[in-house]
Amino acid sequence: MRIEIICTGDEVLTGKIVNTNFAHISQKLEDVGLDVQWGTTVGDDRDTLLRAFLLASERADAVIVNGGLGPTVDDLSQEVAAQAAGVELLLDETWLARMEDFFRRRSRVMPPNNRKQAMLPSTAERLDNPIGTACGFALDIGKARFFFTPGVPRELRRMLDEQVIPRLLARSGLQTAIFLKRFHSYGLGESHVDALLAGVDALVPDGSVKLGFRAHYPQLETKLTVRGKDMDEVRRKLGPVEQEIRRRLGNFILGEDDQTLEGVVLAELARQHGTLAIVETFTSGQIAARIGPLPGAESVFRRGVESRDLAGVCAGVGLDGRAAGEVTPELAEAVARAVLRPTGATHGLAVLVDLDEGPDRIELGGTICLAIATAHDVASRRSRILGGREWVRLGAVELGLDCLRRYLQGRPVVERIDFEKT
Amino acid sequence: MRIEIICTGDEVLTGKIVNTNFAHISQKLEDVGLDVQWGTTVGDDRDTLLRAFLLASERADAVIVNGGLGPTVDDLSQEVAAQAAGVELLLDETWLARMEDFFRRRSRVMPPNNRKQAMLPSTAERLDNPIGTACGFALDIGKARFFFTPGVPRELRRMLDEQVIPRLLARSGLQTAIFLKRFHSYGLGESHVDALLAGVDALVPDGSVKLGFRAHYPQLETKLTVRGKDMDEVRRKLGPVEQEIRRRLGNFILGEDDQTLEGVVLAELARQHGTLAIVETFTSGQIAARIGPLPGAESVFRRGVESRDLAGVCAGVGLDGRAAGEVTPELAEAVARAVLRPTGATHGLAVLVDLDEGPDRIELGGTICLAIATAHDVASRRSRILGGREWVRLGAVELGLDCLRRYLQGRPVVERIDFEKT
Repeated sequence: MRIEIICTGDEVLTGKIVNTNFAHISQKLEDVGLDVQWGTTVGDDRDTLLRAFLLASERADAVIVNGGLGPTVDDLSQEVAAQAAGVELLLDETWLARMEDFFRRRSRVMPPNNRKQAMLPSTAERLDNPIGTACGFALDIGKARFFFTPGVPRELRRMLDEQVIPRLLARSGLQTAIFLKRFHSYGLGESHVDALLAGVDALVPDGSVKLGFRAHYPQLETKLTVRGKDMDEVRRKLGPVEQEIRRRLGNFILGEDDQTLEGVVLAELARQHGTLAIVETFTSGQIAARIGPLPGAESVFRRGVESRDLAGVCAGVGLDGRAAGEVTPELAEAVARAVLRPTGATHGLAVLVDLDEGPDRIELGGTICLAIATAHDVASRRSRILGGREWVRLGAVELGLDCLRRYLQGRPVVERIDFEKT
Repeated sequence: MRIEIICTGDEVLTGKIVNTNFAHISQKLEDVGLDVQWGTTVGDDRDTLLRAFLLASERADAVIVNGGLGPTVDDLSQEVAAQAAGVELLLDETWLARMEDFFRRRSRVMPPNNRKQAMLPSTAERLDNPIGTACGFALDIGKARFFFTPGVPRELRRMLDEQVIPRLLARSGLQTAIFLKRFHSYGLGESHVDALLAGVDALVPDGSVKLGFRAHYPQLETKLTVRGKDMDEVRRKLGPVEQEIRRRLGNFILGEDDQTLEGVVLAELARQHGTLAIVETFTSGQIAARIGPLPGAESVFRRGVESRDLAGVCAGVGLDGRAAGEVTPELAEAVARAVLRPTGATHGLAVLVDLDEGPDRIELGGTICLAIATAHDVASRRSRILGGREWVRLGAVELGLDCLRRYLQGRPVVERIDFEKT
């Protein structure tokens, strides 16, 4: 099935907004085994929109149009869709009532120009938008089925999942039960994981399990798309493959599906009735910034201290007498221990970075010494990362969080990662 | 002049990469008074690329193609460009020598597949890429002039500024001297600034000064595009307009052109031989994270302390005895003063946030009490911001930095902003 995406709107065309909707739609379709062949971006201009719709209708089987469903005069999607399909616009009484109710529940009166959002092409099939006033719809233009979706990202995302993708799958003739399983890891590069996992998809010999990757340094996402005639079959196929992936990637898996590294750390601390204090240098508090905003962090995260220099960090945890010389694992251990008493935290994490001298460049590296301390125990690790200031910073943040995750889960804190030089 | 952009590459088409190059090109062209009418995104597929080139060549006067100039087999831009223009590919000896030199200076031998990057259509005009091996080029396809640019963002950006835009301006017949003047402000909404600046562009009656805005909450960028026959004329026209904008926006202007709020704060502190300690609640250390990574911050930024609760913050600055009740400007003053001694900083900034109870929602608000202290002086401010957790967080960070900027510049710390409820 040939699929195209048309993104509309002056804000997107002029680059005032970076078009994240396009990437979102395209990735979501890929996750269910559908490919996008062509993308078009046009502004809020009647003639250009019409031309874009007609061109796509000649090339594609299905077209997803994003944007232009709002109440203002420059929102033209319904009107141009009707023109392209050669049909009239009609008032959709059901949607009008929905909108009036939407405003009533917010103790507001519907402005008259919102009425425009209930004018749909006469041949349109309504696509529900439970969280906004922009009404989605589908209709045929030429030989292609068009799906019109709102530009507001959270409305688009929901409509895509609930309305558009099921219809596309039904039209594509693909088996309808599909499941996307995801594993998140830190410390192994994409080609390394690819090699480690060679052949796992062949555990299901009918080709219905597909392995893929999405790298967003420093993490790597391993994706497993599984198809079947129903969810029971999907689960049956998935079981042995996910077991094998867990076995092969072992300690490197930091989370699955919607889990995040910081979320796993926080949940593990909460489960152990633990509390956390963090000391950081050079990272500008980015480790604390990953934990602090999470719901529930208020009862776990006690305090963060950050400083650009070692002397400042030592002073900040009451180690004033300490000669702040070289960064060492021993110093990190002392700092992680020292932060426990004043904060009353059960766990202290210290991440100390010694950045190379000189201007920023790709060969610039940093030495990272980190430690995790509790009242009765301490663990530490030294690592060296190259790649410039920002790369070292990102690496230090991720390594710090991941070592804490490993410690809390009883896994080895020291295990070689692909990104370090030794 | 009708301009189109074609973005190529499977990574962009499948959404693995969010396409920021498109927005960058489009904004850069708008900044010099050129409009983009149509955008196309296609993958690394020969037939699709050819079709995209030919379609654009029929519609446009100028087309910017991004991506596909690399050394691998899926980089097809030169080949398909030659096919579309009906010419041969020829080896560009000059570029080959440049590439060999590029590798030699890095003490490496050029891999054989890089040779492909020096194969250009016979009618191509070379567009220099001083920082990479991808050779840009321009040529005619049909009635349109095509400009081929690299996908690597920093290479694209430089080639666009130095090679493509001057050529587009020359072709467009627009006056060639053009200047983009930018003002950054915090605290006034776009429509408010629009009203405040009504008529400033008319100070130059020939229409060669254009006013525009780019809102990226919480900051607003006011853009002034000025054209003239040469830079002397541009400067003459710009002078009175920029003076008038500075007068009308007054204390709200936090920086101009490439200045950033955190950069201005750091520079002002450095000028005054000052040093800074920051105490934050709820912001997860995001104020310190704006200052800390800047070059030169190591000699100014002394320490950051953040905590989710007031008791933690008070303990962190040695105010243990303090009953941590309500957030007040007085408490913020005490905290800002208290952080000076242990850190030895000349300036203390305390930003304390009291977030409303209950689940996150658009009506959720926060009370922000902030203070700036020196050895002999203290200033404070209370503000209330609505809009949900993340909105309050962003507002608290920006307000904290901007009040510090105002204090350091001798401007009023308390001045009503559009985003606060009183």
